[in-house]
Amino acid sequence: MISGRCAACKYLRRRCPSDCIFFPYFPPNNPERFASVHRIYGASNVAKMLQQLPHHLRGEAADTLCYEAECRTQDCVYGCVKTISQLHQEINKAECQLAKTRAEIAFISSSGGQGRTTTTSTSTSLPITSSTQL
Amino acid sequence: MISGRCAACKYLRRRCPSDCIFFPYFPPNNPERFASVHRIYGASNVAKMLQQLPHHLRGEAADTLCYEAECRTQDCVYGCVKTISQLHQEINKAECQLAKTRAEIAFISSSGGQGRTTTTSTSTSLPITSSTQL
Repeated sequence: MISGRCAACKYLRRRCPSDCIFFPYFPPNNPERFASVHRIYGASNVAKMLQQLPHHLRGEAADTLCYEAECRTQDCVYGCVKTISQLHQEINKAECQLAKTRAEIAFISSSGGQGRTTTTSTSTSLPITSSTQL
Repeated sequence: MISGRCAACKYLRRRCPSDCIFFPYFPPNNPERFASVHRIYGASNVAKMLQQLPHHLRGEAADTLCYEAECRTQDCVYGCVKTISQLHQEINKAECQLAKTRAEIAFISSSGGQGRTTTTSTSTSLPITSSTQL
């Protein structure tokens, strides 16, 4: 059975007003979602951040705050900055791979198509681990 | 002249104790650094997050908290999740570019080095804007 109060008001053990700022974004059946942002930002800071936005942007703001809070809970030192760092590394790798492949094209072109192609015979998919995906 | 109090204690208008949790990471000559994390997380949450970490990891945690707070201040809806999203797009673009380039190698190889190379004649550097860099 789902209570009429949102997850935030249940967590904070208070009445959920009809104009509750949390209600649309923190449904009662997902208590961990609110617990996570509360742990990192505190309820009043989350309310303040949502209140300063127009209604149509609040859902996405709540989602990104939850994402960042979950990352920070999982990694207290780096949070989601770890993901950013990993993605920069992936891009650097891809950039190197592309440069090598282009060098190989130049080599093949100059040798009349007789160049070896072993350098670029590895998998075409970039090694992005599932942990770096949003 | 630099005061003996750290930026946090100056901001909070309180005495800076000798064992101040903020002192090593929020120097008095950079008040905006503390103002930023205070605006997003609140002083007590930042103190709590630093306190639960061993000393040698607190500096990096303070840096990543500041980075995330600055991103959130600049973009109240997406924060640094916007950067993550942009980087995923860059990786997808690089993956496509690499696949095209490899297809071109195959074409050049099969045509005896007479294939056109216009597809890969664009710049080798990926279009990562400065705003997506850490």
